[in-house]
Amino acid sequence: MARDPKYDVLFEPIRIGPKTLRNRFWQVPHCNGAGSEKPGMQATFRGTKAEGGWGAVFTEMCTITADGDVMPLVSAKLWDDDDVRALGAMCDAVHAHGSLAGVELLHTGGAAANQESRTPARGVSQVPNDIIPMTSCRAMSRAEIRQMRREHVEGFLRARRAGFDLLTFFAGLGNMPVYFLYPFYNQRTDEYGGSFENRIRFTREVLEEVRGVIDDCAIGIRFSIDTLDEPFGLGACGVRHDGEGRDFIEALDDLVDYWDLNIGTLNWGEDAGPSRFFESNHEAPYTRSGKAVSQKPCVNVGRFTDPDVMVAAITSGQCDIIGAARPSIADPFLPRKIEEGRIDDIRECIGCNMCVSKWEQGGPPIVCTQNPTSGEEFRRGWHPERVPEAANADNDVLVVGAGPAGMECAMTLARRGMRRIHLVDADREMGGHLQWLTRLPGLGQWRRVVTYRQTQLAKLANVTFVPGTTLSAADVLDYGAEYVVIATGSQWLGDGTTNLGRLDLQGAPDGSVLTPEDIMARGATAGERVLVYDTDGYFMGASIAEKVAMGGSAVTYVAPSDTLAPYMRYTLEEQRQYQRLVELGVEIVPQTVIQGFDGRRAPAVHIWSGAESVVEADTLVLACLRTSACAIYDELAERPGDLDGAGIHGLFLIGDAHTPSTIAQAVFGGHRLAREIDSEDPSVPLPFIRERPAVQELARA
Amino acid sequence: MARDPKYDVLFEPIRIGPKTLRNRFWQVPHCNGAGSEKPGMQATFRGTKAEGGWGAVFTEMCTITADGDVMPLVSAKLWDDDDVRALGAMCDAVHAHGSLAGVELLHTGGAAANQESRTPARGVSQVPNDIIPMTSCRAMSRAEIRQMRREHVEGFLRARRAGFDLLTFFAGLGNMPVYFLYPFYNQRTDEYGGSFENRIRFTREVLEEVRGVIDDCAIGIRFSIDTLDEPFGLGACGVRHDGEGRDFIEALDDLVDYWDLNIGTLNWGEDAGPSRFFESNHEAPYTRSGKAVSQKPCVNVGRFTDPDVMVAAITSGQCDIIGAARPSIADPFLPRKIEEGRIDDIRECIGCNMCVSKWEQGGPPIVCTQNPTSGEEFRRGWHPERVPEAANADNDVLVVGAGPAGMECAMTLARRGMRRIHLVDADREMGGHLQWLTRLPGLGQWRRVVTYRQTQLAKLANVTFVPGTTLSAADVLDYGAEYVVIATGSQWLGDGTTNLGRLDLQGAPDGSVLTPEDIMARGATAGERVLVYDTDGYFMGASIAEKVAMGGSAVTYVAPSDTLAPYMRYTLEEQRQYQRLVELGVEIVPQTVIQGFDGRRAPAVHIWSGAESVVEADTLVLACLRTSACAIYDELAERPGDLDGAGIHGLFLIGDAHTPSTIAQAVFGGHRLAREIDSEDPSVPLPFIRERPAVQELARA
Repeated sequence: MARDPKYDVLFEPIRIGPKTLRNRFWQVPHCNGAGSEKPGMQATFRGTKAEGGWGAVFTEMCTITADGDVMPLVSAKLWDDDDVRALGAMCDAVHAHGSLAGVELLHTGGAAANQESRTPARGVSQVPNDIIPMTSCRAMSRAEIRQMRREHVEGFLRARRAGFDLLTFFAGLGNMPVYFLYPFYNQRTDEYGGSFENRIRFTREVLEEVRGVIDDCAIGIRFSIDTLDEPFGLGACGVRHDGEGRDFIEALDDLVDYWDLNIGTLNWGEDAGPSRFFESNHEAPYTRSGKAVSQKPCVNVGRFTDPDVMVAAITSGQCDIIGAARPSIADPFLPRKIEEGRIDDIRECIGCNMCVSKWEQGGPPIVCTQNPTSGEEFRRGWHPERVPEAANADNDVLVVGAGPAGMECAMTLARRGMRRIHLVDADREMGGHLQWLTRLPGLGQWRRVVTYRQTQLAKLANVTFVPGTTLSAADVLDYGAEYVVIATGSQWLGDGTTNLGRLDLQGAPDGSVLTPEDIMARGATAGERVLVYDTDGYFMGASIAEKVAMGGSAVTYVAPSDTLAPYMRYTLEEQRQYQRLVELGVEIVPQTVIQGFDGRRAPAVHIWSGAESVVEADTLVLACLRTSACAIYDELAERPGDLDGAGIHGLFLIGDAHTPSTIAQAVFGGHRLAREIDSEDPSVPLPFIRERPAVQELARA
Repeated sequence: MARDPKYDVLFEPIRIGPKTLRNRFWQVPHCNGAGSEKPGMQATFRGTKAEGGWGAVFTEMCTITADGDVMPLVSAKLWDDDDVRALGAMCDAVHAHGSLAGVELLHTGGAAANQESRTPARGVSQVPNDIIPMTSCRAMSRAEIRQMRREHVEGFLRARRAGFDLLTFFAGLGNMPVYFLYPFYNQRTDEYGGSFENRIRFTREVLEEVRGVIDDCAIGIRFSIDTLDEPFGLGACGVRHDGEGRDFIEALDDLVDYWDLNIGTLNWGEDAGPSRFFESNHEAPYTRSGKAVSQKPCVNVGRFTDPDVMVAAITSGQCDIIGAARPSIADPFLPRKIEEGRIDDIRECIGCNMCVSKWEQGGPPIVCTQNPTSGEEFRRGWHPERVPEAANADNDVLVVGAGPAGMECAMTLARRGMRRIHLVDADREMGGHLQWLTRLPGLGQWRRVVTYRQTQLAKLANVTFVPGTTLSAADVLDYGAEYVVIATGSQWLGDGTTNLGRLDLQGAPDGSVLTPEDIMARGATAGERVLVYDTDGYFMGASIAEKVAMGGSAVTYVAPSDTLAPYMRYTLEEQRQYQRLVELGVEIVPQTVIQGFDGRRAPAVHIWSGAESVVEADTLVLACLRTSACAIYDELAERPGDLDGAGIHGLFLIGDAHTPSTIAQAVFGGHRLAREIDSEDPSVPLPFIRERPAVQELARA
């Protein structure tokens, strides 16, 4: 199929300084857990995006010296020649598909704790980072600023030597250009402080010096054009898109070949906005101010997944190039699918920020709820679009349960050419718990996990969806499939069991203790005074509290965590969700465990001080613990003779039915099993490549 | 010098199963950030301890399968043959010095989030970890338990193949033996649940099966004999030293060659007790119950640094072997120094838990406040006891400032043989800010940073301490030294500047706004109602609040962090410090910034909701920001001609005078400069080895 002509504009080549971008798709810098330490992962991950049609493909943030070290966060590094070699592999992989390789260079100034290098930091003024504890820096002397400029030039030269085409000077979050620019962070009284011209002097000098030695790469800036209002942004301490943000672009436009524009601060949930709070292209009101004053190609981001929105962004004069981080993770082949007219094959980002959550923890490789191959391109050798035919393809598979794990498994098994796949569910619709979960406030876009797979399954002739059918163990044995996959999900527990002990629920009247499913899937009604108890650690407690409060109940939210569930901090959802609950009048009681509930009162204890209190409520909602619905698997697994007799070669348990976890993990589990259905023992994941130190270094030990 | 005969008992060899421990010093398992991923660091770090006389040297916790993966925490791994090779290097390094190499093997059950491997976890019952969010596991079937046992045996066999002599089965914090043992976590109704015998069945079976295939290694258990009262421990959910803790030891004693006993839970600050709250050997009341029922050698821990305390622990029948983690980090040569009669050369652990703080963050390599070479043995090639003579030793050095950075620098320069070193301080005593800091509640042992260095400096003939002398830039130029090191520290700022903006202090009467130094070093008195504002991120705010409250003031502690300063969580000090403040009546107001203070009222804003409030107080103490005292350096650095004229070859800035940070970082900075004083440019740290992936793997990318 050919592309729709209305999308032609997206595929026009653009001149970027001395380079030509082959289309208007630009994978902006984003982390993946590879850095310079996992060059195989880095190269294959980025190369796959180039293969999928992204005209420019960038590293994550890349520090240039040992005193810009952000460990435990995993950044790329260009500290030395070994890093040049490591990231050179990525450049080669990107070039192999005709795309431009980009790098986002920075020195973090006082924002780095330098826990790997232990080198004390140099910065603009002696102001510690506002988020990361135990940071600070020396306020550079003029001589030290000269040295810092030289080190920037050397960093750019190393990037060029690695093979990068697009050299982005990073001016957002925390780094030299913005610490010089933002009035509060620049308290200097010399020619680098005070006036606007002084505060951009360093950046101008670096650009001039880099241009003096590099003329065969494109040089641009990634700039946060607006640092937003408090409490989300810097308020008077930063810059605004209709003030110095715009002025910065105007002043330096002659020295750059492109601008990559976004918004926000180190509190970066306003940029990588979760779909819970932000629509696609939500940054346009800010970033269009940049394009208005620049003569150079401008990149914008905003969770673009819809080509019509992309075209509008370009034709409306908002920007020239479609930047994407999360949409390119969810679908590395997004541009190619538009080009090939396969719009309904696009695996759209759901904006859950599960990817971001890994960076925020430092260390773990990237994951994606929609794309189970993300981060697995090298170490497991998984391609996002291609799967090999299964060696045992001449067999039938019964998949019990059409939630995210079962759908992904059935879809991937079908692509692997298994003879017939039956996807059976007790419900009339596919989706499993996502049917009710996606009706929680703000989670509508998460439904894309279901709709993408429904669309794909409908195209695969060897899969049949069998709705409204509950199978017993005997039914499974009789079904006739050689392989059986149990993907029957999990349920929230309402019996008072939590991971922090068991609640005494004696005396609690029927219907006064509810689970999230009771409310969302079974139509149970909460009372007037509702206590939501959250020991889960992710969004469910806070979402149910929001839902119940929106229904008019007075809600008290109690959790052992410091504020809301801690995983929401990793997904950058915690602050706005907190605010949302406060707006709805929800009382938030952190660091507290509930000991019991009798229908009127719930005794509570502060986890640290041991102080006792009582929460009054008529309804207790337990968002504490899920239990796997694995009875059918357990029954069958105990009957190996019957399985043999029924001609069943393999019985497998995946998704929440094995271990309740994230949707990402359920999709991954379903995909993993389908990928390895023809391995020796598909119930045990195959080993993967762990990138480890060189033999030479080991020999030195 | 020979050792004092009263310490002979510490050097008696002991038979441990088929192995002989050459003395009674046992470096218990502890993390260092190396895992299996940095084999060079792991081998050299552990080998150095063997060289220093530790008869047994262990890895950190070592997981045996991919579904026991604790990333971002850095564990050792024995998942495959590459890991065998990686940890084999450590065994070789330990054996080279005649010591036994030990490994602490475990499967984490439901305690692991498996963020690296993405393999869903198997466990005892389906109970998520109580601390780490987004964990859970499948409750194993009997068949899966058999499989899990096999995997344990395979893990032990891999350990043997790597060359380990001491195979510890870990039964503490979170792993199979304790999840089976602890009644709450074991909700099984089969032969693995219910009775005590059932709950130790798995552990017994594994030990029997391991013994069936391994007879040439010693096999033991590391066991947490008491899981303590709530809110620090598990209360009724765990085991006690006079109950099932002791019973566990009695029941399995025949199957082990040794016991390594400690206390506590995953909330492990009660085991790795900071000196702020715990004396040396604080676990004795619990662990002696183990020795009482065991026929096997028992190891105890408890921050042992004093050989007299060690001898008493053994001769009193408390234990047979002195276990140590932190003391072996602070001084890898502790046993050898006792053996050589060099007691006053011991670099005693101060119990600050800076080492622990790196593990808690995941990723960063270990550091030690007392021992700046910790973690640097391989990558920087630093030995804790030996330094090479400096190539420019025939020069004099002036070190200005006798705080931790200056003392360490002077001491190490002296050891490197510099001709003459003058260590000059304005004060009469050495120690810098540690003179007042160590008078804060609970921080007395931190004074060891000073006393160790004072003792050492007194032994070095080429160092002279010049007290009570304030030098001007002109004095420095006239001093006659070829190298000048400025180590003049930092001061807390009292002008309202914070890392979150500047407070409006208009109207605040003189003396109503204080810094920690005003109170501790300058004798300022806080008023009756004191507001302590902490944006620092570590202990100072909480310590000053404690101090002022102990003096009788009513204290409100306000911080933008979630509870207390976040770095205290990493050092395992937060919970008890929180409790201490609550006991003293301190009101803790987290997630809040102060906007100003007029001597009576401080307007405050909640950082997330934006809700406004007012704190009433007559005194504001700012524990917010330190500023370097680097004026003399800055002045001299601007006069290169004068430096030349004075014959000064090098001018350097170290410690807090460069960047205010931890004491560990100040000591490190002083040591680093002394190590590299003869490098091309000593102001720039030399590159260090970063252990990176193998060429072969890169070629695959």
